[in-house]
Amino acid sequence: MRILILNGPNLNLLGKRDNKHYGDLTLDKLEEILKKEFPKHQLTFFQSNIEGEIIDQIQISGKEFDALIINPGGYAHSSVAIRDALAEVSLPKIEVHLSHLAKREGFRQKLITATGSDGYISGFKEYSYFAAIYLIEKNYYKK
Amino acid sequence: MRILILNGPNLNLLGKRDNKHYGDLTLDKLEEILKKEFPKHQLTFFQSNIEGEIIDQIQISGKEFDALIINPGGYAHSSVAIRDALAEVSLPKIEVHLSHLAKREGFRQKLITATGSDGYISGFKEYSYFAAIYLIEKNYYKK
Amino acid sequence: MRILILNGPNLNLLGKRDNKHYGDLTLDKLEEILKKEFPKHQLTFFQSNIEGEIIDQIQISGKEFDALIINPGGYAHSSVAIRDALAEVSLPKIEVHLSHLAKREGFRQKLITATGSDGYISGFKEYSYFAAIYLIEKNYYKK
Amino acid sequence: MRILILNGPNLNLLGKRDNKHYGDLTLDKLEEILKKEFPKHQLTFFQSNIEGEIIDQIQISGKEFDALIINPGGYAHSSVAIRDALAEVSLPKIEVHLSHLAKREGFRQKLITATGSDGYISGFKEYSYFAAIYLIEKNYYKK
Amino acid sequence: MRILILNGPNLNLLGKRDNKHYGDLTLDKLEEILKKEFPKHQLTFFQSNIEGEIIDQIQISGKEFDALIINPGGYAHSSVAIRDALAEVSLPKIEVHLSHLAKREGFRQKLITATGSDGYISGFKEYSYFAAIYLIEKNYYKK
Amino acid sequence: MRILILNGPNLNLLGKRDNKHYGDLTLDKLEEILKKEFPKHQLTFFQSNIEGEIIDQIQISGKEFDALIINPGGYAHSSVAIRDALAEVSLPKIEVHLSHLAKREGFRQKLITATGSDGYISGFKEYSYFAAIYLIEKNYYKK
Amino acid sequence: MRILILNGPNLNLLGKRDNKHYGDLTLDKLEEILKKEFPKHQLTFFQSNIEGEIIDQIQISGKEFDALIINPGGYAHSSVAIRDALAEVSLPKIEVHLSHLAKREGFRQKLITATGSDGYISGFKEYSYFAAIYLIEKNYYKK
Amino acid sequence: MRILILNGPNLNLLGKRDNKHYGDLTLDKLEEILKKEFPKHQLTFFQSNIEGEIIDQIQISGKEFDALIINPGGYAHSSVAIRDALAEVSLPKIEVHLSHLAKREGFRQKLITATGSDGYISGFKEYSYFAAIYLIEKNYYKK
Amino acid sequence: MRILILNGPNLNLLGKRDNKHYGDLTLDKLEEILKKEFPKHQLTFFQSNIEGEIIDQIQISGKEFDALIINPGGYAHSSVAIRDALAEVSLPKIEVHLSHLAKREGFRQKLITATGSDGYISGFKEYSYFAAIYLIEKNYYKK
Amino acid sequence: MRILILNGPNLNLLGKRDNKHYGDLTLDKLEEILKKEFPKHQLTFFQSNIEGEIIDQIQISGKEFDALIINPGGYAHSSVAIRDALAEVSLPKIEVHLSHLAKREGFRQKLITATGSDGYISGFKEYSYFAAIYLIEKNYYKK
Amino acid sequence: MRILILNGPNLNLLGKRDNKHYGDLTLDKLEEILKKEFPKHQLTFFQSNIEGEIIDQIQISGKEFDALIINPGGYAHSSVAIRDALAEVSLPKIEVHLSHLAKREGFRQKLITATGSDGYISGFKEYSYFAAIYLIEKNYYKK
Amino acid sequence: MRILILNGPNLNLLGKRDNKHYGDLTLDKLEEILKKEFPKHQLTFFQSNIEGEIIDQIQISGKEFDALIINPGGYAHSSVAIRDALAEVSLPKIEVHLSHLAKREGFRQKLITATGSDGYISGFKEYSYFAAIYLIEKNYYKK
Repeated sequence: MRILILNGPNLNLLGKRDNKHYGDLTLDKLEEILKKEFPKHQLTFFQSNIEGEIIDQIQISGKEFDALIINPGGYAHSSVAIRDALAEVSLPKIEVHLSHLAKREGFRQKLITATGSDGYISGFKEYSYFAAIYLIEKNYYKK
Repeated sequence: MRILILNGPNLNLLGKRDNKHYGDLTLDKLEEILKKEFPKHQLTFFQSNIEGEIIDQIQISGKEFDALIINPGGYAHSSVAIRDALAEVSLPKIEVHLSHLAKREGFRQKLITATGSDGYISGFKEYSYFAAIYLIEKNYYKK
Repeated sequence: MRILILNGPNLNLLGKRDNKHYGDLTLDKLEEILKKEFPKHQLTFFQSNIEGEIIDQIQISGKEFDALIINPGGYAHSSVAIRDALAEVSLPKIEVHLSHLAKREGFRQKLITATGSDGYISGFKEYSYFAAIYLIEKNYYKK
Repeated sequence: MRILILNGPNLNLLGKRDNKHYGDLTLDKLEEILKKEFPKHQLTFFQSNIEGEIIDQIQISGKEFDALIINPGGYAHSSVAIRDALAEVSLPKIEVHLSHLAKREGFRQKLITATGSDGYISGFKEYSYFAAIYLIEKNYYKK
Repeated sequence: MRILILNGPNLNLLGKRDNKHYGDLTLDKLEEILKKEFPKHQLTFFQSNIEGEIIDQIQISGKEFDALIINPGGYAHSSVAIRDALAEVSLPKIEVHLSHLAKREGFRQKLITATGSDGYISGFKEYSYFAAIYLIEKNYYKK
Repeated sequence: MRILILNGPNLNLLGKRDNKHYGDLTLDKLEEILKKEFPKHQLTFFQSNIEGEIIDQIQISGKEFDALIINPGGYAHSSVAIRDALAEVSLPKIEVHLSHLAKREGFRQKLITATGSDGYISGFKEYSYFAAIYLIEKNYYKK
Repeated sequence: MRILILNGPNLNLLGKRDNKHYGDLTLDKLEEILKKEFPKHQLTFFQSNIEGEIIDQIQISGKEFDALIINPGGYAHSSVAIRDALAEVSLPKIEVHLSHLAKREGFRQKLITATGSDGYISGFKEYSYFAAIYLIEKNYYKK
Repeated sequence: MRILILNGPNLNLLGKRDNKHYGDLTLDKLEEILKKEFPKHQLTFFQSNIEGEIIDQIQISGKEFDALIINPGGYAHSSVAIRDALAEVSLPKIEVHLSHLAKREGFRQKLITATGSDGYISGFKEYSYFAAIYLIEKNYYKK
Repeated sequence: MRILILNGPNLNLLGKRDNKHYGDLTLDKLEEILKKEFPKHQLTFFQSNIEGEIIDQIQISGKEFDALIINPGGYAHSSVAIRDALAEVSLPKIEVHLSHLAKREGFRQKLITATGSDGYISGFKEYSYFAAIYLIEKNYYKK
Repeated sequence: MRILILNGPNLNLLGKRDNKHYGDLTLDKLEEILKKEFPKHQLTFFQSNIEGEIIDQIQISGKEFDALIINPGGYAHSSVAIRDALAEVSLPKIEVHLSHLAKREGFRQKLITATGSDGYISGFKEYSYFAAIYLIEKNYYKK
Repeated sequence: MRILILNGPNLNLLGKRDNKHYGDLTLDKLEEILKKEFPKHQLTFFQSNIEGEIIDQIQISGKEFDALIINPGGYAHSSVAIRDALAEVSLPKIEVHLSHLAKREGFRQKLITATGSDGYISGFKEYSYFAAIYLIEKNYYKK
Repeated sequence: MRILILNGPNLNLLGKRDNKHYGDLTLDKLEEILKKEFPKHQLTFFQSNIEGEIIDQIQISGKEFDALIINPGGYAHSSVAIRDALAEVSLPKIEVHLSHLAKREGFRQKLITATGSDGYISGFKEYSYFAAIYLIEKNYYKK
């Protein structure tokens, strides 16, 4: 399957920073590991700090991909526009977060983009991505 | 009159999606119909999914246009920055929405950008644009 | 078309007061101007300060009119009863306001009656009525 | 017993509309059925869309009736004045609703008039009235 | 001076009910006492349970009276329409309440109509009216 | 009909306590009176202070009963789990309360379990149960 | 009668400042005018910017005065301690404000001290004090 | 690994009910499928409708299991006690939900138990459990 | 005196866990120490994780005990049912908490059960129990 | 031990007033009784109605005392400054209240100063002080 | 210039305490350093823990000083009275805080006094004062 | 020092607009003045209306600059993403605003980005920038 993995703002810093919420893997390394773990799928990574570019990418994903995984970063809590773009796409789509948002600041408890996806995985660091691909592989959306 | 018609995120999908909130006209077709309906005016369409590009466009509109119509899409509910840009522009300016926001989700009830415009039209699908141009034609802002 | 134009509390003072939110046209003059502007339609004006009389009028409008325009004035923010009456009527129906409510006091931001209509126009002074009739003329509700 | 059955705004449309929240019985037919069901009691129906007329009727009910049943319709959620009028009346008094308000819109969850009555029955369509009369017949208020 | 004394819903019951919030004077007796106390002024009493009639009366008061005293009863907490009518009137105008609202239920703490008047007197039973007339007599509004 | 009457926490104390909110009938006595009043029906009483046992009982009620009456006591305000169990059961089902909750503490105004039933009766002490059985007898749920 | 007139923070500036909320009378001049207006009473003025001194003064007022008028200034919105002190005093007691608080900032809408007094007068500038003394003179608290 | 799979209230009905939020697999069938899918692990299922039994089970899980998966059902939104029990357990622990809670009723948006686990998976029906076991197998918690 | 000491969910883990909020004494050890400290009283410990069992125990306490101390653990913040059970019991009754709740998470600031007891002690670890017994010994409730 | 017992506003009235929330002991008498009850300790009483004096006293307590007990009275609900002063002091420190605040007005539920102390005792009238000294004597803060 | 530097409650402890929010400079040392840094200005320090003394000082500052710097400490979040005193003063006036309030407890996010000053500096420890004097020196308020 | 001065949306209009909140200096002129005022430092100006470009710039600032000053404009109130980017950067960083936000609209009181910086300066027009550079020059962040 062709899977688009969209990463939002600041995720390009993954592994380059080192705090309590996130692991120390870089985004490039994550891509490498995931491709190795899931060789049968064609994984395409896209990262942008720009809300509108993420929307652009979501909009065209329907034609070029079979599934979509999105980590919207900080836009998860404010972007009605990303939510609407996701809601339009008829692909299987999963929102992932590295940290367990429920344990963090109050302003991270408001989930706006989440209602645009089929489901939500939060708190397993890079393994949140693993689980998302695994679920797509399992055809969770069939039935 | 030279009227700028600004469309925000996901409005490029107009007519390409098909849900209960919006009609089935594409943005291109809408442009065509409006130009036909209002041949005396020079209508310029601009669409972007990027908040900052919309702000850029608003900022320069004062010099090149006589009026401004904006459908801020999902940015209507979060963008203080678009609101501020609109508030700076001294053109007649109208916010339009395809769907009747008052009937939709709670997070669409908070109107941030609206206070930057002169008025607000919501719920008439593509006809919201018709009404906005009609109002500008009527010189609603005079007096 | 036969269009009922319902005006709620204090709108009988239109043009007789002179503050920053409203124009200086009287309700009678507005009726005259609108009839002149839209000679093809039969416009019927009804004003009452009494919530229940407005409900009565809405209830009977389905039989005698082809469309309904309502400016509920201050009842816009509290009247579940007007909302329910509007929701029952199967005519095309539009809520209009002279001032741009989004710019006014907090207690004017709660819109109760609005969800009973098809759409909402706010901020263009007497031109809000013009736009509403224009939209009905355009058969916005068809499709 | 002489029982006053007060119906608020839009209840004159009962049975004339046909939506998911209400049955298809008219108010006249309901009166007929209730009188047949409870022949021992003298049932008096009063309906008004006007808040103040309902208050007037409540005020005089103490002298002419032995019990009061009220369906305040949309006024249930805003009328401190009806609540106060009910609170003054020393008759047994019951608030009824056709639909199960707890399942409906947020603005129907605020119950203002209810605290003026002895109890509350909601969700059984016309049978809400049956239950209210049955309770009065059972002298629920004695003891 | 010609002073209009407007009483809202349930105030016709004044003195006929007997609870902890209000004194035992009837409205007629209050009128009599006030006229005796303030023989120099022409006091006109108007009471209605109907919101719209109160609005009607406020609207015409500007022409026939020199000052206005209003006890809006339960409408104090919900009526944007009465507030707007008061705000339009350029007479000296005072809102009075028999009971001390600050000590009562939560829903009586929201003051909507109050912002339409010049000032507010609450908690002195019938003496609230005395104080209002006294203030008008003192020309509080001059300067 | 076979009717299950479920009573939640502290209702086993009914009649053993004596405060302003409840009557002085014991639960056993209530059962006796109801069986005498409604001899045609087979009434089964179940009381538990344990949320999960109430859920268990609701779950099995569909097979053994024709209707369900529940007084969830204090769980009415917090138990999403009881609400979900009720929502699953396809029997006619009614929530009853002895006291008129609308007149009590703020934390009793949040109704969670109520949306799992067809309707709601509150404030008639033991007669709330009478009314519920009466409504079931009347086949309120038919149509 | 011996009447204590307590003035809270910043009221010593009365008349020395000149803004839209307050008149231009000094506190000394106010005292002079009131004493002239009400020669039969013994008026004692006390002003302090210190919350605890105001509490001290309230506490001892019961022994030395027959009535108490308080303008708590900004403490009106936060001081549970002043409220408690007032609630302890069994004198007739009235809270007054120069400006009409209902028309001012949101943080002035929370009334904490008010529930410690018998009633509340707001919006008549120095005349608020006049009305308070007038009410005491009228023995409003008798009955 | 020895994995405890805890299911809360109403999950014993899984597959026996058939609504839009959940799949049609029974809990027994789910157990069978998961054991087949993950033959290397020893999966132990426990279901209870009783909050305290779930707490009991969580408390003893530390000694007998290597990881814990919990679907707290309706208790997810109210049980501080389950949250505290989870927080005490030092096993890897994951909260799963069949439906995508972010898309459901407001009262399901408050997540109380979630902060007691390491992460959260919601919206993939039975596959939510698959993903949780997969993540444990991947040793997500190492590092 | 016969004193019942009720401990709610997760308190059986006392001393077996070791975090910043609680001391390291086991519940058994606490019982031993308290009995040694207060040899004149007959102390009965009861712990349950099950809300309904705690309610059962409260209900029967009136007959077998002279005072009641309860640490409701996590149920303190949600259980209207425990609150109601406590409110029914006429024994002296005290709510205790090991940790100082005022310093902990927001969801621990809502105190539901507390209004069912005579008083509240929080933050002294096992000494909260000491103080409660001490207070009972001192007959705090007399007078 | 040298223990400072700080009493805030209106506590000098203790025993001089007589309402349902407080006992009838004067502060002097309380001091006498406590000294008799705890002869081994040196108890120093300080009372002030002035927030800043209480802060002054807290600030110097660290040098002259071994423990601090504070009843902040009405300042408990608003004084960030007292809270900060308490938080600076490294003595054992306990907040006490005579009445059970959880049962009183809403504005007494916000506890600001409490987070500056080690623990909190509320509802046992003068015995709240007894318990606080007892706890200090027991060295609750050791460990 | 003559600059008054007002310090509120607990700031006399500056440098004597040692926690994460504040530096270790004493207030005396700060005065010394600032005087050395800004030899051209005449700096006057005033500290009080008493709200009313701060108000007194603000009131007289207009006559004796050319600018005012205030660190209101904990009063920043509750004192409408200090806010009003500041608003009256026509000097350049700046509110400073040692710590970055935006990163601290929720109750420090409500800024009451701030609206009484021209601007706000927070988070630079003693340097917040440096910046304030620097700004005054730069005549920020001119223009 | 190399200082990056980041300006967010609409700040390119600085000096080109002329309202009450901002001065009349252009951004170019501000750059010129600041460079003249602080010749020892290397000041780099960057302005963008695009949220993501601002994030991009923040991310790379750590390598090329010694300190960062940001005026996030309208993004200050919604951008979790900018906040997160700032929080990652280990440079000294200061948020500045031209206007005194505490005095403006309610939606400008929510500060999201501020918690990503070390401190906050608001209300001194262009002098806010002066103060920020001054503070960096003073090495406020040392110690």
